[in-house]
Amino acid sequence: MNKTENKIYIVGMGPGAEDMMTGQAIKALEVSDIIIGYTVYIQLLGEKFQNKELLSTPMRKEKERCKLCFEKAQAGKTVAMVCSGDAGIYGLASLMYEIGTDYPDVALEVIPGITAANSGAAVLGAPLNHDFCTISLSDLLTPWETIEKRLLAAAEGDFVIALYNPSSHKRKDYLARACEILLRVLEPERPCGYVENIGRDETKATVCRLDELKDAQVNMFTTVFIGDRGTEIIDGKLVTKRGYQIER
Amino acid sequence: MNKTENKIYIVGMGPGAEDMMTGQAIKALEVSDIIIGYTVYIQLLGEKFQNKELLSTPMRKEKERCKLCFEKAQAGKTVAMVCSGDAGIYGLASLMYEIGTDYPDVALEVIPGITAANSGAAVLGAPLNHDFCTISLSDLLTPWETIEKRLLAAAEGDFVIALYNPSSHKRKDYLARACEILLRVLEPERPCGYVENIGRDETKATVCRLDELKDAQVNMFTTVFIGDRGTEIIDGKLVTKRGYQIER
Repeated sequence: MNKTENKIYIVGMGPGAEDMMTGQAIKALEVSDIIIGYTVYIQLLGEKFQNKELLSTPMRKEKERCKLCFEKAQAGKTVAMVCSGDAGIYGLASLMYEIGTDYPDVALEVIPGITAANSGAAVLGAPLNHDFCTISLSDLLTPWETIEKRLLAAAEGDFVIALYNPSSHKRKDYLARACEILLRVLEPERPCGYVENIGRDETKATVCRLDELKDAQVNMFTTVFIGDRGTEIIDGKLVTKRGYQIER
Repeated sequence: MNKTENKIYIVGMGPGAEDMMTGQAIKALEVSDIIIGYTVYIQLLGEKFQNKELLSTPMRKEKERCKLCFEKAQAGKTVAMVCSGDAGIYGLASLMYEIGTDYPDVALEVIPGITAANSGAAVLGAPLNHDFCTISLSDLLTPWETIEKRLLAAAEGDFVIALYNPSSHKRKDYLARACEILLRVLEPERPCGYVENIGRDETKATVCRLDELKDAQVNMFTTVFIGDRGTEIIDGKLVTKRGYQIER
């Protein structure tokens, strides 16, 4: 990986701890002149990359942040835009490609990262070890009817489900609502789990039944897992069997 | 991360290139006495970890490989079991937890890695930028009826779909069969893409329509992506808009 003019690396930082970044992601930051991201991440990176220009925009100013990347890259700089997890999974990668049509001289490259589904699953055991889907419960950008339709489709298709954004200050009851929808199709005993603050010192993992998950205290840093019919709790870990394991 | 007796790290190596491993994965290999995995990966790692005991079992001997890890760990060694991608996504993590009930003195820890859905998506652009699911087309371990049910549920739920194991020597027509099932619900123009040999020198990415995907030449190293209703091809990249982008 080389320093290249008019280039933006869209970098997935993983869940937070530096040793959960890939070598490629670290290299992309090293070859960049400017690192741009959400304020909290920029502060975290500031200690390691003090020789870089570090720029940030607050939450909800995503379009402005994307445009800032393109303005800097068009001026000849190598830019790294950082997102938590994987920039291509509930991150800003697609918005960057859209806005990029206005900046044909700027090249984009996505550097994948460990998303919360993967890192949370590793903490819980192996819940995603067969076909799974991810659903965000945030209705800021998606109508609730679509979210409800997807929850039902996922349950009817017997997918393991990883829920992103299960709660926020304004949406305290969304996980309970999602559980009630799933309980129309799935049994109350279905094994579930959730992980808070993945990849940080205070990581906390809990396994439970679907009817208990309804009352779980979660926040915007929690990732929630609902098992498929082959999921079991083994020695406190949430484990989804692959096909031949179910048939044994 | 420390060297610990009677411990097995279940390590996701990512798609292949060393710089797509996380720092944590590399540390787990460094602190281990023995590295165990599928022959091809062990050969790759052999150059870097010449001071380790390297053991492998052939393909299809997964249970034997898992048991070998436990035997070595029970004898007091620190063991790393390596899987490509993420060991918890179509890998051996869940089988390890199951077999682990026979070895209560051995501790397990999953180290997440970049799975083909994430790394392939990064090559294609940003196809997984909204709710998505992964489906393996291999019916070695899962009945084809279950796979068919999941394909339909995913299409009806308007998920982006990432297909693993779209083909093999014995299942040359499986991708075509999957496309025909999806075409019952999705329009022929639906944007799709596929990536071969992710993370290696010969990475090859293609975008196409769903009715063209049917005839695509794929193999067991290909990962296939089918867009949702918000997916577009932008400057040759496969890009799935987040909700607010669709509504703009």
